[in-house]
Amino acid sequence: MKLTTIGCYSATPRISAHTTSQVLESRGHTFLIDCGEGTQMELRKHKVKFNQIKHIFISHLHGDHCFGLIGLISTFRLLNREADLHVYGPNGIKELIMLQMKLSKSWINFNLIFHELTSLESELIFEDYKIEVHTIPLDHRLYTNGFLFKEKAFDRKLLVDKAEAKHIDVAYYRKLKQGADVLNSHGELISNADVTTEGIPSKSYAFCSDTAYFEAIIPIINNVDVLYHEATFLETHANLCAKTKHSTAKQAAEIAKKATVGKLILGHYSSRYNNLEDFKTEAQTVFSCVELAEDGKTFQI
Amino acid sequence: MKLTTIGCYSATPRISAHTTSQVLESRGHTFLIDCGEGTQMELRKHKVKFNQIKHIFISHLHGDHCFGLIGLISTFRLLNREADLHVYGPNGIKELIMLQMKLSKSWINFNLIFHELTSLESELIFEDYKIEVHTIPLDHRLYTNGFLFKEKAFDRKLLVDKAEAKHIDVAYYRKLKQGADVLNSHGELISNADVTTEGIPSKSYAFCSDTAYFEAIIPIINNVDVLYHEATFLETHANLCAKTKHSTAKQAAEIAKKATVGKLILGHYSSRYNNLEDFKTEAQTVFSCVELAEDGKTFQI
Repeated sequence: MKLTTIGCYSATPRISAHTTSQVLESRGHTFLIDCGEGTQMELRKHKVKFNQIKHIFISHLHGDHCFGLIGLISTFRLLNREADLHVYGPNGIKELIMLQMKLSKSWINFNLIFHELTSLESELIFEDYKIEVHTIPLDHRLYTNGFLFKEKAFDRKLLVDKAEAKHIDVAYYRKLKQGADVLNSHGELISNADVTTEGIPSKSYAFCSDTAYFEAIIPIINNVDVLYHEATFLETHANLCAKTKHSTAKQAAEIAKKATVGKLILGHYSSRYNNLEDFKTEAQTVFSCVELAEDGKTFQI
Repeated sequence: MKLTTIGCYSATPRISAHTTSQVLESRGHTFLIDCGEGTQMELRKHKVKFNQIKHIFISHLHGDHCFGLIGLISTFRLLNREADLHVYGPNGIKELIMLQMKLSKSWINFNLIFHELTSLESELIFEDYKIEVHTIPLDHRLYTNGFLFKEKAFDRKLLVDKAEAKHIDVAYYRKLKQGADVLNSHGELISNADVTTEGIPSKSYAFCSDTAYFEAIIPIINNVDVLYHEATFLETHANLCAKTKHSTAKQAAEIAKKATVGKLILGHYSSRYNNLEDFKTEAQTVFSCVELAEDGKTFQI
């Protein structure tokens, strides 16, 4: 998996501080997560290929997470896109986009498929043979979901020399990669473990923004490799969290620790702070493996 | 008058090519004309003060002219704006903005007043004692208006030495500036022309985008000091104008010539062209005083 934090600030887009948008590349997919104003320009800047984006996940309908969506869809239209586009987001997102398209008489040539979300429980919203995507219901002022991306198990690695030595016909190699024991050409049952090793480990990524400190997400994100959790404030402004339903860096770290995640990435910083390192320092008082999202920064998962 | 072309390209915003937005400063007003995606970031970049914008004029509801409006209004809200905001634009613009605000539960503390336009005739849509704004109905695929900004007459310049020599009481100076003849302290009628000269000349600016070649606008924009007229294409692509309802640089110049304007500014260039000087060269075969809009360029009118 490769994650690019296209924009990582809260509230209003500024010249060099873009609002939330992320690109997650995983097993041939290019998933776009949230789409603040100007995301399409930032995608161009970071050389993300527009025609590879087939699934867009919108956490909630605050402007800093969705105002760039209509512009991106409109650009897809102007680029003569033909591939289907799936948009997952809160109920109302279809009305929002369709009204704008109707008023601008912008008829598209591709299928635009909305998956409107209303559930307060985690649900599976996308699945193929390589990956699954689940919602992570969050606690914000507005109906909001995070998203959990879980790669399915990769094939086991076949040790060809050993398989040949055991006289296994190549016709069985696919079954071996899938983990099965097979009969060799002498009719003997060969244990899978004798001729294969672990494949590439499957990875998982959880995106959680925007949300107050919310322990209900812990069972859903438990043991993920990487957790992105919003940290709008530092503890010096913890008093603002209740009203705005945002988190501090320390609270994000507490969630990371309780969910025993591999790594925590912080983002969605309020513009009142000049030194982002303070977020890292605060989080590391609770959980050691912390990184900071920055506009255009890439993380290998 | 001072005009800043915040963005001057057509279709889709790119890293260094912003879609249509202009700021016209005139006699204490800061008018925003069109508002493509990312306009708020460009306004910050060019140091336009947000709280001075009280009137926004939207020509039509294609995305490259309006997708930045909701973001700008949303930012005004986050900045705790209190001043009224007037938005002039096609019928439907209120529904578009209000739906987005409803879905994001973004309640504002300032009066947001929509002036929805439907007329196919030019109409006066704003007036105070300093300036008036009229619509310029255009010929595009969608209901579209340009806008004509006409400063009202400035006061005449009082020649104080001459007024004193003519024994005019200072109480009459205001009337003199307004152009009246007055009685002096000996009861003699003093001709205004004897003690005043012309004031600062009033200026006018016409914004015409997007439109096909459309002679019906000529009586409305006749003799304006500066005309901005879209030039999406060069004559080499004149065949595209009928379908897309856009103009070539030469057609823009023909309108400028027939309307005997002072200066023509071209913009709304298609991204297919690399050399903008070609637009100027083509227009100058018809009309000599031509300038090119560029992102962030300022014109004194």
